[in-house]
Amino acid sequence: MYRSHSCGELRIADTNKEVTLAGWVQKSRDKGFMVWVDLRDRYGITQLIFDESRTDAAIMQQAKSLGREFVIQVKGQVIERESKNANMPTGEIEVLVSELELLNESQIPPFTIEDDTDGGEDIRMKYRYLDIRRNPVKNALLFRHKVTQEVRNYLSSLDFCEVETPYLIKSTPEGARDFVVPSRMNPGQFYALPQSPQTFKQLLMVAGMDRYFQIVKCFRDEDLRADRQPEFTQIDCEMSFIEQEDILDVFEGLTRHLLKKIHNLDISKFPRMTFDEAMRKYGNDKPDIRFGMEFGELNAVTQHKDFAVFNHAELVVGIAVPHAAGYTRKQIDELIEWVKRPQVGATGMVYCKCEADGSFKSSVDKFYDQEDLAKWAAATGAKAGDLILVLSGPTLKTRTQLSALRMELGNRLGLRKPHEFAPLWVIDFPLLEWDEESARYHAMHHPFTSPKPEDMHLLDSDPGKVRANAYDLVLNGNEIGGGSIRIHDKETQALMFKHLGFSTEEAQEQFGFLMNAFQYGAPPHGGLAFGLDRLTAILGGQETIRDFIAFPKNNAGRDVMIDAPSSIATAQLDELNIGLKNK
Amino acid sequence: MYRSHSCGELRIADTNKEVTLAGWVQKSRDKGFMVWVDLRDRYGITQLIFDESRTDAAIMQQAKSLGREFVIQVKGQVIERESKNANMPTGEIEVLVSELELLNESQIPPFTIEDDTDGGEDIRMKYRYLDIRRNPVKNALLFRHKVTQEVRNYLSSLDFCEVETPYLIKSTPEGARDFVVPSRMNPGQFYALPQSPQTFKQLLMVAGMDRYFQIVKCFRDEDLRADRQPEFTQIDCEMSFIEQEDILDVFEGLTRHLLKKIHNLDISKFPRMTFDEAMRKYGNDKPDIRFGMEFGELNAVTQHKDFAVFNHAELVVGIAVPHAAGYTRKQIDELIEWVKRPQVGATGMVYCKCEADGSFKSSVDKFYDQEDLAKWAAATGAKAGDLILVLSGPTLKTRTQLSALRMELGNRLGLRKPHEFAPLWVIDFPLLEWDEESARYHAMHHPFTSPKPEDMHLLDSDPGKVRANAYDLVLNGNEIGGGSIRIHDKETQALMFKHLGFSTEEAQEQFGFLMNAFQYGAPPHGGLAFGLDRLTAILGGQETIRDFIAFPKNNAGRDVMIDAPSSIATAQLDELNIGLKNK
Repeated sequence: MYRSHSCGELRIADTNKEVTLAGWVQKSRDKGFMVWVDLRDRYGITQLIFDESRTDAAIMQQAKSLGREFVIQVKGQVIERESKNANMPTGEIEVLVSELELLNESQIPPFTIEDDTDGGEDIRMKYRYLDIRRNPVKNALLFRHKVTQEVRNYLSSLDFCEVETPYLIKSTPEGARDFVVPSRMNPGQFYALPQSPQTFKQLLMVAGMDRYFQIVKCFRDEDLRADRQPEFTQIDCEMSFIEQEDILDVFEGLTRHLLKKIHNLDISKFPRMTFDEAMRKYGNDKPDIRFGMEFGELNAVTQHKDFAVFNHAELVVGIAVPHAAGYTRKQIDELIEWVKRPQVGATGMVYCKCEADGSFKSSVDKFYDQEDLAKWAAATGAKAGDLILVLSGPTLKTRTQLSALRMELGNRLGLRKPHEFAPLWVIDFPLLEWDEESARYHAMHHPFTSPKPEDMHLLDSDPGKVRANAYDLVLNGNEIGGGSIRIHDKETQALMFKHLGFSTEEAQEQFGFLMNAFQYGAPPHGGLAFGLDRLTAILGGQETIRDFIAFPKNNAGRDVMIDAPSSIATAQLDELNIGLKNK
Repeated sequence: MYRSHSCGELRIADTNKEVTLAGWVQKSRDKGFMVWVDLRDRYGITQLIFDESRTDAAIMQQAKSLGREFVIQVKGQVIERESKNANMPTGEIEVLVSELELLNESQIPPFTIEDDTDGGEDIRMKYRYLDIRRNPVKNALLFRHKVTQEVRNYLSSLDFCEVETPYLIKSTPEGARDFVVPSRMNPGQFYALPQSPQTFKQLLMVAGMDRYFQIVKCFRDEDLRADRQPEFTQIDCEMSFIEQEDILDVFEGLTRHLLKKIHNLDISKFPRMTFDEAMRKYGNDKPDIRFGMEFGELNAVTQHKDFAVFNHAELVVGIAVPHAAGYTRKQIDELIEWVKRPQVGATGMVYCKCEADGSFKSSVDKFYDQEDLAKWAAATGAKAGDLILVLSGPTLKTRTQLSALRMELGNRLGLRKPHEFAPLWVIDFPLLEWDEESARYHAMHHPFTSPKPEDMHLLDSDPGKVRANAYDLVLNGNEIGGGSIRIHDKETQALMFKHLGFSTEEAQEQFGFLMNAFQYGAPPHGGLAFGLDRLTAILGGQETIRDFIAFPKNNAGRDVMIDAPSSIATAQLDELNIGLKNK
């Protein structure tokens, strides 16, 4: 061992001890007759002191030559500092160095190894191995480890068994976003990397494993939106002989356990909201309920006057922005421009100031009188001093726009507090989703999601209204998990395929393997998967996942550190029986 | 929840309770007026009873119609059994059924779901989801979970941080056995799946993570020998600021922890053996030391007579087979034929019986007298009643042959007891290995393995004699882990590349990325990786890994259950910018 203690360990009680430390030179100050070096390792920083009157001249000289990020080992005595630093755990002591060994030199790092670095995203990613030396990234990785350990301990204590499912699996016809892997031993054939272990976890239920989980990498070759990764990690779970309520119980328990263990927060029963309610109140199936600004539907109180824009709209809907009645015309115009950006897509926005004196001032005063506007305030819950913002148009589109505005305002007004946690179950998702392009219904989750028995009769008459035993766990406006109860009987499954527009042959071709397995005694089962990257980021009080992944890829799916993907040798292609197109 | 209790839970103390159980019909016995059904779930089996005098006629009828592996839910009362079964935990009770719901039917399974099944390997693999219902496979998976949990708890308690390294990495020129993944977004470019996270774990040390581990899938596209998998799991570890002794300490501690937690075995300090000694005593760098039969080198006591075979041999070496002096001529001939099989490749074998009366009877009595043979006995440690078997020829080849024979005899004589555990460190591996094909030295482990400082001077004069700071952990004759201290300074690294025959340019091209990272303050570091599949199998008292993997592939790298790999659509190939050769 190169050290007797870590750099985060020594305290005043260790005074006079002879210690050996090893680590990186964080920084040094050379006062001529004295040199101080901050020595850093994963566990902290300890100040070293070299002093002309007490330190050997050769060592003194060596200390003066140390550059940033040099790796050294020192021996010395723990002494009490003259000027203590209350901001660091080791701030009461320093080590008077008697021996110094240079273990390795370092080139000057391309950015400073500080909490607030001068390095931009690109350079930090290229030198990720230096970026990880910085506390924010290092701590994010340590935090992730803690989260996964707690997840594993909690689920194991409930008899869940972690089972590793294969990574080299089979591409499916609908697997357009599969990464594939040519097989050298089986020329012309390919494995696929799993988009999720969905099939395997259901097979494990058929296999009687009863309670399965796995923290597992999944792969999706899709065009990357911001903050998506081609490889990502799921906490994947499945249970047998359970109903929806049991799954919600277990994973609410898991989330509560994490919040308790990590933030010492006690959160009682999570609120639940149906998909319909979430859409109505927040325009969003993953609402951030840390703050209000619930939607107020205004059709009833706006469509009786001559304002054609509202009268022709399927939906008129508003929110009350707290304490914003004082916004200037310029501020309001900026908000109007914001919702008109193509990313949001509104055509305009109406506002109404709820003045302190109880009167109202709106951009549509020509059409609506004080009595009308009072009803708007009532519907949106606006109080004196608030600002009502109103959008109108097709229902889904308008809700989505207003939701974007609500979230933006939540951010701007500091209502989305990173260390406040507001979990929420969104339940009763629709079973089917209309797809404009193929002009047919698709399974909103996947074709094995079970419909609610009481809605089955709607499958023919009003398929879009059929609700599923499907649920999402939402945390602070992010979907962190989702799942469903699966169909386990073949009659329901056949019915589903029919309504999804699969012929018996197509269903057999695409899902036959699992359906065959189901013929050997499939138990009732269901499950859920958490996105670990996002869960960890949100629990860590952040919204971007990148620092919670040790070696992330950029938006082009590239690892800029190792420069992957890259071309490979023709000989290697030959051996795999493949060739490049257009070559 | 479909049940109030599991099928492994009820005891005599539960008598009279009303319970709900759910599971699979293991078997049923129909005595006409009475029907018994064994109901099985992951946790055990509970006997259900249906009785004409106490059970509703309709339910009675339904019970009679239940087939094997049907999935049912029952409600009923726990009653004391008339004839108890001491062999099952629930054997004192049964459940008198009052309600029965058929949850799912099952086709007749293609093999019996019993500990000893009538299904062959192929059919069991094809229906692995049924095979896992069998106790031996189910228990192996539960056991694997327990092992990984204990590994994670132990390493976490020592400040190791589990970090997920990427799966989509870069193919390296020497990565002939890389699986590659075409990138759709980066046409003509490929990711590679990691053969191990070696580069990344060393980068994590450069990054200051100090103590890293990961239980991680690795991939190798090699022709599969028996009991190898194209995807396999490693417990991968790396530490900074340590010496070899520290690594041996930590992972000896881990292994001891597992043996204690799993088998309640206390094993004191693991013995250590140099590579040279292992080769000399056991002809093998992973000796099974659960039994003796150490090699006795016989050159000194055989090469002074007229037996040309021995006189011309580089090595004459024997083992004493305990209590085998009574072997018949036929038995001995069979052993001679066994070593002459091409898989072993000996040209012949000499034997010497150590008779009970202290005399000797050998197949070469013509050349050696009793006094000579007494020396053989002394060298091999043979006692009266033992049988000495002697091979001769080139040193390495002969040792390998005799090692194969020793292991075979260990098996035949029942000396390799599955529930006896004999760990062993093999240390001081050679740094370099001569490769006949390329007529040069190769790194035995990898090119970053550090040579022993005291052997550095031999690099020029006798490279094959240079020992490395490399070590294997051997358990019961299997290498379960191995690793090394890495080179962290560029002078030694440059020297190594020179001796491995890399030009500066070649070294830069193949290893430049890691070498560059090392210029920013690489700490002294080293590590180790365990093969989880094998470790688990051996801890579970077995030698084959297949049942400890939920969904293994066969020797052709195929998953016969899902039928992967398989061909994919031309459209998909097009989108990936690749095509098949010879098409």
